[in-house]
Amino acid sequence: MITQKDRIQQLQTALCSWHAGFGIMKAAQHAVLVLCALCAMQEVQCGKILVWYTDGSHWMNMKPILDTLIERGHSVTILFQNASMFINPKEHARYDYHLFNVSMEMSEVVEFFDDFMYFSFYELDRLSYPSIGWRLHQLLHKDAELGIRICDGLLRSDALMEKLKQAKYDILFTDPIYPGSELLAEVLNVPFVYSLRFSVANSMERLCGQLPAPPSYVPGTMVKLTDQMSFSERLTNSVFYLLVDAMYRSIWTQYDQYYSEVLGKPTSFCELMGKADMWFIRTYWDFDYPRPILPNFKYIGGVHCKPAKPLPKDMEDFVQTSGNDGIVVFTLGSMITNLTREKTNIIASALGQIPQKVLWRYKGERPETLAPNTRLYEWIPQNDLLGHPKTRAFVTHGGTNGMYEAIYHGVPMVGIPLFADQPDNMMHMKAKGAAVIMDYSTMQTEDLAEGLRAVINDPSYKANAMKLSKIHHDRPESPRDEAVFWIEHVIRNKGAKHLRVQAHNLTWYQYHCLDAFPILIGIVVLVLILVFQTCKFCCRKLCLRSKQKKKQE
Amino acid sequence: MITQKDRIQQLQTALCSWHAGFGIMKAAQHAVLVLCALCAMQEVQCGKILVWYTDGSHWMNMKPILDTLIERGHSVTILFQNASMFINPKEHARYDYHLFNVSMEMSEVVEFFDDFMYFSFYELDRLSYPSIGWRLHQLLHKDAELGIRICDGLLRSDALMEKLKQAKYDILFTDPIYPGSELLAEVLNVPFVYSLRFSVANSMERLCGQLPAPPSYVPGTMVKLTDQMSFSERLTNSVFYLLVDAMYRSIWTQYDQYYSEVLGKPTSFCELMGKADMWFIRTYWDFDYPRPILPNFKYIGGVHCKPAKPLPKDMEDFVQTSGNDGIVVFTLGSMITNLTREKTNIIASALGQIPQKVLWRYKGERPETLAPNTRLYEWIPQNDLLGHPKTRAFVTHGGTNGMYEAIYHGVPMVGIPLFADQPDNMMHMKAKGAAVIMDYSTMQTEDLAEGLRAVINDPSYKANAMKLSKIHHDRPESPRDEAVFWIEHVIRNKGAKHLRVQAHNLTWYQYHCLDAFPILIGIVVLVLILVFQTCKFCCRKLCLRSKQKKKQE
Repeated sequence: MITQKDRIQQLQTALCSWHAGFGIMKAAQHAVLVLCALCAMQEVQCGKILVWYTDGSHWMNMKPILDTLIERGHSVTILFQNASMFINPKEHARYDYHLFNVSMEMSEVVEFFDDFMYFSFYELDRLSYPSIGWRLHQLLHKDAELGIRICDGLLRSDALMEKLKQAKYDILFTDPIYPGSELLAEVLNVPFVYSLRFSVANSMERLCGQLPAPPSYVPGTMVKLTDQMSFSERLTNSVFYLLVDAMYRSIWTQYDQYYSEVLGKPTSFCELMGKADMWFIRTYWDFDYPRPILPNFKYIGGVHCKPAKPLPKDMEDFVQTSGNDGIVVFTLGSMITNLTREKTNIIASALGQIPQKVLWRYKGERPETLAPNTRLYEWIPQNDLLGHPKTRAFVTHGGTNGMYEAIYHGVPMVGIPLFADQPDNMMHMKAKGAAVIMDYSTMQTEDLAEGLRAVINDPSYKANAMKLSKIHHDRPESPRDEAVFWIEHVIRNKGAKHLRVQAHNLTWYQYHCLDAFPILIGIVVLVLILVFQTCKFCCRKLCLRSKQKKKQE
Repeated sequence: MITQKDRIQQLQTALCSWHAGFGIMKAAQHAVLVLCALCAMQEVQCGKILVWYTDGSHWMNMKPILDTLIERGHSVTILFQNASMFINPKEHARYDYHLFNVSMEMSEVVEFFDDFMYFSFYELDRLSYPSIGWRLHQLLHKDAELGIRICDGLLRSDALMEKLKQAKYDILFTDPIYPGSELLAEVLNVPFVYSLRFSVANSMERLCGQLPAPPSYVPGTMVKLTDQMSFSERLTNSVFYLLVDAMYRSIWTQYDQYYSEVLGKPTSFCELMGKADMWFIRTYWDFDYPRPILPNFKYIGGVHCKPAKPLPKDMEDFVQTSGNDGIVVFTLGSMITNLTREKTNIIASALGQIPQKVLWRYKGERPETLAPNTRLYEWIPQNDLLGHPKTRAFVTHGGTNGMYEAIYHGVPMVGIPLFADQPDNMMHMKAKGAAVIMDYSTMQTEDLAEGLRAVINDPSYKANAMKLSKIHHDRPESPRDEAVFWIEHVIRNKGAKHLRVQAHNLTWYQYHCLDAFPILIGIVVLVLILVFQTCKFCCRKLCLRSKQKKKQE
């Protein structure tokens, strides 16, 4: 814990630097700073934050929160392993690090990733449904196996585990996409907070987090449906929920076994996940369809977004040459460096047909059809370009991060989704009227040119993108501040069990009252039968009497 | 709309009042004020707010929000009628008012209220269950009839309706306990926001607001259960939901008819309620059990709470005489002015047995057993007393307002619940370990004395009350600020349909997938039958072949 004494000392230093020569505005500025420091003193109880290993875009989404936590005086310790792709202690010297070794080479991670890409790009379009299911199952089992190996690398390192126990962390912050954090939290006995973009069909959130999701209007992530479903779509969504749940349950048995072994008592992955104090979901109602939520689920979509900075001079010069037509920003994400020659030529021809200047992030070979209005870049300052007043459209693969930057700045999109959640993401943007979608495998020059012209010239796309931007910004606090607040809340309250529903303590049939309702129906039927039998008996008696009476007469 | 020009002028005036002679601190103070004004300028779009008629504690809960809205530059117009009990234009001159006449005398309102009290206090303990049901049904039908007459008084007043249409309000703010506001919003075509404490079994919130509430862990309001239910309690809760829903549906038919008549097309009360842009629910997770919520449901419990002010001198002197023992604050609410002589003597004797000084709000006859440690008051500054450092316990009937003041200040409670939601409220506090409950009808001197001693001397009650207080205060913004933010959000965005779930457009069987699932089960059964029949057919063929083979052999 960083003591209040240190904070008071900081404050005193600030106060001492005041003197009469300061102009009034300077003093005023200072006063604001001091007030802020005072507020911080009152509100923040600085804590020791442990961060579970994560990578790729997951790490990029965690960083802004961690940076803010550091600025607010917390200490942050990152767990990372020898096969990390993105985490580099030299780059981010403000954090503490604990390295652990995993029996895995970087090449193995890359190989798995390539395998996954091959499945997404080629097999998904070519295989039969049962084969897709089987391949997906294989891939997810491999993913689970890698996850357990990473987890094992940490948990079997007695020296590091002892260090972690001694350090007495206040909270564990983690992205559940890399499993094991819930097990570490259980072993260390610390509260933990998840930051999650999604699990397929939101199975983790529903089954382990107890997030209610009626399949009639809450489409599972990746099913490519909206919240307004026809009968057959509702049927599809329900089947999607059931199948993905079954698939996850099968994969989780691997974890269950490992977790039970480590803890020395029967437990399950889902049960431990359910102990999370808080879940940050990295969407919001700008992107997502309104749906039931829980008090310990906070929607922090766009947590990494920030205002645009000025562009590098040569880029700004190029942008300015676009005049009133403006520019188009084009990127298919950091994962795609090469496309087929045919595709690049199709794209380049389409880009040549619009009057806008185009900045295309592309590392591959220069396409022959590249027009003078288009420039290729190995890297672009994507956020700064999207926030530029001359930007008219964003051509994107539909990755969450880029899409959220477009929402933040109110830029309409042309989506060329490739794999994973990208088609589903773009479906959201299309449903909200802020994007058109291209089919990557069948897309021709005219399709892309048509899509670009629509998004740029039809004012409804810009208006809808601006509406999403307004929704994004019009909330009581920024997603980053919200995340930081609730992390500090968990630190202050040593957990947040007061926000966690009791559904976690019910079995599935208790949850759905499947034990209570049959009995209820039974009672109602019994009462109805009794009433019916009594009436029948009375009627008979009456009939008998009237017959006897008639006979007597 | 108040223009930005006016605000800029205010700002200029503030800036002009600066001059060199100001001390640095003064300037700093000013800078903060100016910054605040600037923030306000950027964020607030001042609007015209229309407030639907309400009364009693409902009005008291709305007032703090309205006051803050006025302070932020909005204009507020209150609709009130000739038989209002609490709204007095002379008292609250900062609002505009529109009076409308209702064919109803104040005496009729009082008579209905007395009838309701008689039912709650006497009939509820004496009648059989079917009789209770019948009486409740009668009372609620009468309540609906009065509601429609109030509504009719406004809607049939052509002059006033014309005035309201001309005024072009930005929002209608209303407590749905007085029906008709949703109809007015429809007629005026303005967005509307509800502020609601509860409906019995939360039927309004569930059936019309589409708030999900699994009966297995979400107890309906007034059922006196917690979120941890046994099998029989879950059964009770489910039956409670079903019965209350049926009762409400029967009552709402009165509204349905009236609403359809006014709009000139078939509509329903529930359908119009479902169009609400936002629902403020006046509880929070300090009082309520965590449960599923929706993006357009905001929990603003304790919206009326505020820090304690100093007590009047003679009261403070009396409080100070208590020494280390401290004081007990006692009130059964503004509705109860008289108790039976027997009850007051029981209570007074119990109060005489504790070492604390007692401040008892009571207008009736002075009990003979009143001890020297107890003083009677016709009125007490309840909030200031609860926030006094010497307060050890609060004896309360369990009304939401008083209970929330106790939570705000972290004071443990002795509940003597009388009627309506009070027994259920106290059940919440008992379940959270911050209160004991007395049974008003059977309570004896020793029971009350015992309860008081427990709450005062057992430190767990104080600790739990302080925990609730911490949860209450530890949120990103105060309930009042939250309410004001979302009202302004609705004004800025001309509604908040982007936070409203699509469940509103589904029938109940579509919502529960009762159309999709049977078909799904049907398909599975069909596939199984087909597989089974095919296998059977194949087996037979094989058997036949092998038999023929054998024969041939």
